[in-house]
Amino acid sequence: MIKTDILIIGAGPTGLFTVFEAGLLKLRCHLIDALPQAGGQCSEIYPKKPIYDIPAYPEILAGDLTDKLLEQSKQFEPGFTLGERAETIDKQEDGSFIVTTNKGTKHQAPVVAIAGGLGSFEPRKPPIPNIADFEDKGVEYIIRDPEMYRNKNVVISGGGDSALDWSIFLADVAASVTLIHRRNEFRGALDSVDKVQELKDAGKIRLITPAEVIGISGKGRVTAVEVKQKDKENFIIETDHFIPLFGLSPKLGPIGSWGLEIEKNAIKVNNALDYQTNIPGIYAIGDVNTYPGKLKLILCGFHEATLMCQSAYKRIFPDKKYVMKYTTVGGVDGFDGTRKEAPKAVIKKIE
Amino acid sequence: MIKTDILIIGAGPTGLFTVFEAGLLKLRCHLIDALPQAGGQCSEIYPKKPIYDIPAYPEILAGDLTDKLLEQSKQFEPGFTLGERAETIDKQEDGSFIVTTNKGTKHQAPVVAIAGGLGSFEPRKPPIPNIADFEDKGVEYIIRDPEMYRNKNVVISGGGDSALDWSIFLADVAASVTLIHRRNEFRGALDSVDKVQELKDAGKIRLITPAEVIGISGKGRVTAVEVKQKDKENFIIETDHFIPLFGLSPKLGPIGSWGLEIEKNAIKVNNALDYQTNIPGIYAIGDVNTYPGKLKLILCGFHEATLMCQSAYKRIFPDKKYVMKYTTVGGVDGFDGTRKEAPKAVIKKIE
Repeated sequence: MIKTDILIIGAGPTGLFTVFEAGLLKLRCHLIDALPQAGGQCSEIYPKKPIYDIPAYPEILAGDLTDKLLEQSKQFEPGFTLGERAETIDKQEDGSFIVTTNKGTKHQAPVVAIAGGLGSFEPRKPPIPNIADFEDKGVEYIIRDPEMYRNKNVVISGGGDSALDWSIFLADVAASVTLIHRRNEFRGALDSVDKVQELKDAGKIRLITPAEVIGISGKGRVTAVEVKQKDKENFIIETDHFIPLFGLSPKLGPIGSWGLEIEKNAIKVNNALDYQTNIPGIYAIGDVNTYPGKLKLILCGFHEATLMCQSAYKRIFPDKKYVMKYTTVGGVDGFDGTRKEAPKAVIKKIE
Repeated sequence: MIKTDILIIGAGPTGLFTVFEAGLLKLRCHLIDALPQAGGQCSEIYPKKPIYDIPAYPEILAGDLTDKLLEQSKQFEPGFTLGERAETIDKQEDGSFIVTTNKGTKHQAPVVAIAGGLGSFEPRKPPIPNIADFEDKGVEYIIRDPEMYRNKNVVISGGGDSALDWSIFLADVAASVTLIHRRNEFRGALDSVDKVQELKDAGKIRLITPAEVIGISGKGRVTAVEVKQKDKENFIIETDHFIPLFGLSPKLGPIGSWGLEIEKNAIKVNNALDYQTNIPGIYAIGDVNTYPGKLKLILCGFHEATLMCQSAYKRIFPDKKYVMKYTTVGGVDGFDGTRKEAPKAVIKKIE
């Protein structure tokens, strides 16, 4: 059982900044995220895209934003359960909650902060009848560890940035890379399209278009896929892996059945006070919540996280009075023993 | 008459970020600030101090924060009325407001956003009976333009960073600099104290401690001050300027009598919706406002500014529907003709 003060569901920007604000209040945090790394959408979907409306950043790449937030929060030593999805929540007699993931990892905390963004990103799956039988047995929708593909035969399908970028990356790792797309045209960064062209010309990527994978076969694991290509007879490609990269689509997922008040696929919160949900002790912050006038902007999540932490503090320590100190005045004491502070003024006689 | 869409009272971080958020909605802003430069407290009181709780900045100097916000907002061409204090507000028949400063400058806008921080910073004045007669006639509490002191004789009093730093700066500009402090010890950055010691040893700053200025004389303008030094008889120093630098203390000031609901020296707003005050069309954002759970943090001002701009838009264009676009997706179009946008994806055939 992992125990913490604030259990954060979702390790995107809002979840990461919660760690920092909680840390200022000496509260510890643990984050659960279905994605294999922290950063949420910013890291998974658009790490190389610039954001222009983060305050005091005229421009910042989404991936760099994640890095900055990780750096800012690391002194408060957050715990992470990554690549697992928060599945069930059970309220305990002492008022705390136990959250269990799809892989059975259990977490206990007096406060749960749902910072789940648009939900957990579920891969869009191709309509192949038996595909579920091969999931994690040669079929992967997200590449978690590229080393897994070393010296293997890989079939990737898709026509966007993910399909292009992973084809390029795996061309140097896998024994063979076949890229299948239902159109002749790819949609992605100019660099990536040109690079795939180059690798194709060099014989390092096999390209099959316009085509799609319509069948998977194998005993227990993928050993081949069946391909339907325009104006040709269907044919079989032997492969160790089939990786459909058709994008991710956000789903509120299991959180939707936790008894929280839901409106337009988002969790209703008390924005007049502390962003608490209808279940005391469970808060929802960032894009996952809704209230009158809500804007799904990262900077709003930062504010919501900050107010939520104050309320969480009062819930965890009902008898203590917390006196807010400005970081510029009081400095920041990390749980790892580090201290940041403004250079002190000296009091000194001039002779 | 200066006309704009959103008239912002206060050019601190919250006011500056409002320009950006309003700009995304194609609304123009004009800012009024009593201080001679933008940035509020961050620029005037602690430009060299680090702040640790700006999201995604593990550390940023307050002055750099101002610079970043100015850079982020400049494409939306804000107007500034600096060094003037918003004094009166008059509602017009068409629902707009006219705000007049202490120097008579008039501004008209359909929406007023008060982002006045802790209020206008009023200098702490020494208790010299006739000091008011010499204000702006040789007595200055804030140094707006150091060039004004070139080849003049200057008496500075105070024992903190402002007194030290300006003594150092003016030592090279003024004909003479006399620094008077009521203690022998100064309180400031080690560098500054050491530098003043050095300039004193070199005969470039005259130091009189423990002492204070107890009188000012002159016909129409300052020509001399009277000094009381411990264990000595009072004496006269001839000078062109007397600059008491005893710090600034925030006062809500004239805004306090605009008919706004005030609580604990802050303006009550509707935090459940749009940070509007009890007077429709007047909003209050950042440290100047209050509501249940309010935290006087810069990051909260950013969020409040953002939601306020949406409400202002609806007030200004009741019949238009604004559809929010993410900056990452839609880019940012400056009023100055600049455009920022993420590199476009290409759609390209691979042969």
